Formats: sequence, structure tokens, C-alpha cells
Amino acid sequence: MSTKQNLEENSEFVPQFDKNGLITAIAQDSRTGQVLMVAYMNHQALDATIQSGYATYFSRSRQKLWKKGEESGHRQKVEQILVDCDQDCLIIKVTVDAGQCHVGYQSCFYRALVRVGAVREPPIQLEFIAKKVYDPEEAYRK
Amino acid sequence: MSTKQNLEENSEFVPQFDKNGLITAIAQDSRTGQVLMVAYMNHQALDATIQSGYATYFSRSRQKLWKKGEESGHRQKVEQILVDCDQDCLIIKVTVDAGQCHVGYQSCFYRALVRVGAVREPPIQLEFIAKKVYDPEEAYRK
Repeated sequence: MSTKQNLEENSEFVPQFDKNGLITAIAQDSRTGQVLMVAYMNHQALDATIQSGYATYFSRSRQKLWKKGEESGHRQKVEQILVDCDQDCLIIKVTVDAGQCHVGYQSCFYRALVRVGAVREPPIQLEFIAKKVYDPEEAYRK
Repeated sequence: MSTKQNLEENSEFVPQFDKNGLITAIAQDSRTGQVLMVAYMNHQALDATIQSGYATYFSRSRQKLWKKGEESGHRQKVEQILVDCDQDCLIIKVTVDAGQCHVGYQSCFYRALVRVGAVREPPIQLEFIAKKVYDPEEAYRK
């Protein structure tokens, strides 16, 4: 009975995995509100996240469960999980240490679009709005 | 030349649309940091967003451009657009009025997962963490 209205107005949790069995998950710093990364969970990853209290995703590139931080050490302690109106997207509110992005930044969103030339006209370039907080080569060398 | 490293380390904007021609876009309140909604943009929607200064998405259910707020009036004025490391996700930082979700809430994320019964064990239910800020039936009646 997952009608649209049920999904939106009820207290029943019916995560809407897509045809690949995945749901979008946004990791957001519970203290600062900064969006850290966007990844995907399958049913197993979501269960692991809920049961362990640490964010676990499904890596699309490696096609396997990805316990965030298992290599880098930069784990995400889950404080709260929110779901959106049609239940096809989650926000994972997390407590984290410094450096959540594998490139070395605190957040994966370390660049902003800027216009080059006339206002409101392309071309668009990217401006770096953050500094790296750790050296990924060192973190992943272990 | 969109190698992984180029995508991550360069200032060239090369949005990675998926096989359906879409990129994930997170609307985040630029003042409060609250995540308001998650939607998708095709190339045309992204161009329209950049050029108009107001968020335009691609509606997957209606298969057409969706200028946010064109029916409800709840538009999103774009303050900044961020892109993530592999350039397959955008954050649209926006200024908004009250009521961004079509169900009547400020954010689409108005419910949190709560455990029923023993700690760290399913079943999971949803708890409403927000109040409606407008009456959607009235807003869409026009």
C-alpha cells in the first residue's frame, strides 16, 4: 500500500530503492549543516548503517558495500537519519573528524561555479572555495 | 580530457550527466544550511538555472522542465552553485520563502527514522519533526 499519499503523510518507513536497488544518501555534518558528500545505499548498506551507527554506503564503482572510513579512518557517526516526502532520498546527519572527501577536503563540495565574462552568460569555471585538510596520499598509503 | 583527476583537481566545469542526461541537485537554504529538497537537472535546466538566477529542475515524473515555484510561487533564488569532486552532483544554495515542499513543509525532509523496540534493531518508523507551514491545497488551487 505504498500510494503516493501514504509515502508522504504516514509514519511508515518504505524506502524507495531505484531499479538498481539504490537510494540517494546525503551526508550532512550534524553540527555545522555542511553537506559533506552524496552517495548511495542499497538495502544492506542502509541496514548496516542503522545497526552499526556508522554510515555504510554501496560503492557503485566497486559494486560492493563501502563502510565509510574503513580505509581512510574518516568514519561518519550517525546522529539522525531523515527521509524526504517521496522516500527516495535520505539525509544522514553525522559527526565527523576533519577530511571527509577522498581528494583531501572536508567536504566533496569544495568548488563553486563562477561566471567568466558577462554576468549570467557562460562560460562557467570552477573556483576552489576550500583548502585541503589532509593529505590523501598519506591517508590511503596504509 | 575528463579523466578522474581532471574532474577532481581542475577548475574546468564538466558536469557529469548520467545516462538519462540528469545530474543530482540538492537545494540548500543559503542562510540556515537546511537541505530543502533533492531533484534533478538536465543540461537545459542547468543552463536555465544559471541564466535566470532561479532554480529550474527537470521533472522525471512529468518529463519536462520544472521552474520551481511556477505553480506554487515558492521559487528558489540562486545564491551559489557548488559541485562535488567527481562532478556528478550539485548543491544549489538558495534564498527561499516559507514552504518549499509540495506537501506543505519548509523542507521535504520533515521525518526522521526512529527505532521501535530494542536499540539498534528494526523495525523502524518515521517521526514527524516539523509542522506544515502552508496549505498545499490552497497554494495549488489557482
